[in-house]
Amino acid sequence: MTDIDDIRATAHLLADAARAETLRLFRDPALRPDNKAGQGYDPVTQADRASEKAMRAILAARRPGDSILGEEYGFQRGDSGLTWILDPIDGTRAFIAGAPTWGVLIGVADESGPIYGIIDQPYTEERFEGGFGLATLTSRRGVAPLAVRRDVELGQALLMSTYPEVGSATDQAGFARVASRVKLTRYGIDCYAYALLAAGHVDLVIEAGLQSYDIAAPIAVIRAAGGIVSDWEGGPAHEGGRVIAAASPELHAAALELLAG
Amino acid sequence: MTDIDDIRATAHLLADAARAETLRLFRDPALRPDNKAGQGYDPVTQADRASEKAMRAILAARRPGDSILGEEYGFQRGDSGLTWILDPIDGTRAFIAGAPTWGVLIGVADESGPIYGIIDQPYTEERFEGGFGLATLTSRRGVAPLAVRRDVELGQALLMSTYPEVGSATDQAGFARVASRVKLTRYGIDCYAYALLAAGHVDLVIEAGLQSYDIAAPIAVIRAAGGIVSDWEGGPAHEGGRVIAAASPELHAAALELLAG
Repeated sequence: MTDIDDIRATAHLLADAARAETLRLFRDPALRPDNKAGQGYDPVTQADRASEKAMRAILAARRPGDSILGEEYGFQRGDSGLTWILDPIDGTRAFIAGAPTWGVLIGVADESGPIYGIIDQPYTEERFEGGFGLATLTSRRGVAPLAVRRDVELGQALLMSTYPEVGSATDQAGFARVASRVKLTRYGIDCYAYALLAAGHVDLVIEAGLQSYDIAAPIAVIRAAGGIVSDWEGGPAHEGGRVIAAASPELHAAALELLAG
Repeated sequence: MTDIDDIRATAHLLADAARAETLRLFRDPALRPDNKAGQGYDPVTQADRASEKAMRAILAARRPGDSILGEEYGFQRGDSGLTWILDPIDGTRAFIAGAPTWGVLIGVADESGPIYGIIDQPYTEERFEGGFGLATLTSRRGVAPLAVRRDVELGQALLMSTYPEVGSATDQAGFARVASRVKLTRYGIDCYAYALLAAGHVDLVIEAGLQSYDIAAPIAVIRAAGGIVSDWEGGPAHEGGRVIAAASPELHAAALELLAG
């Protein structure tokens, strides 16, 4: 087995384990969200923790030399040069609400940034995978290639973002300029928005205040599907912050210009 | 077969037909949304039309005496005293975006208002049904009873609405007063929000600008599950407009007071 094959096989084992741990508690009335924010509300559940623990256990057994960065249990240094970047539940608020749009994010990065990723949607049984020259959606309907759509102009574009309140007041004004020019803006589906962009249904995703574990896997999947992900200045986005994903270079350039004001 | 059995059997046939027609076109790149609004954007697709046509054909064959009110093809008068109220795709914007949260709404009303309804979620294969003394969710996991949760206070409540821009400026101010008091506010999942309230995951849904076909089926399902649906003054909601659904009388009263200002 080449290392690429082993990375992919390991990633699918992680996604399978996270799917089992999350679905076990999804919509369970016994779920008791904790608040991990000092101020405000940043919920975490036993499902987030169980999902990340299960993934870390598999990595400890199969790839002990790799580093791990996870939302709930932080950074663990390895010496291989590869880092697994894990969000055990992206969209914990949706998870708590019983909505099916939360997902599990599994990214693999080297010193250049994300090289491979999975966006897994446990409840709908959809797995979006990209990197190492492949981009696929595996679902109950089988396996299909993932590709962005490139023929949509800004005035016809579909824009998504998780929250109507995007970042700072300046950020919100930039977002509003883009929203005023596209055909349709939709809110609220977390990492699913990036998956839908990779699959050719959505043209732009614009967010602010992201963490690296929110965006590593989407970067790999979207690039593999032919799309573009950057920060709002056009630079690397894998550290998080203000992120834009676009289906084509033309849309990316047009949106960056509007975001800049 | 009693008339109740026939109504239920017919409703399930309608939901099955709508599920087939909508899923056939969901995420199809050939889908070409039309705009039916004179100003602004109110999309409709061939899937909305095919779904409603298929349901009307079944009603014509099985229940020719009933009236029909559908979003795409309007009102057709019958003489039985019963009206089928159909939204062939609730959440056409989500449908166009490839998001799985759109649904099909099938309500049955007599002169008193909705007495039975189905909220069907074709992509996730979930069917929420309520009326005639039953309230159930049928899914890939089997059949389960539907019941609201009644033990959540306003400060712990989960509120949903489809759009952050709720109705008029006055309406938005009322909505904001409620949103400022609950634990968590989520946007953007159309009729799925009502289904999640009936299933005990969400405590409040507050919207404005609804049509009768948006709310007839949710009213029947939520009441059957033990919840309350009214307009923002506490009166009947089945004609649409400003609607609030609540899991308990206490939450309903508290939210009505905040909406009134």
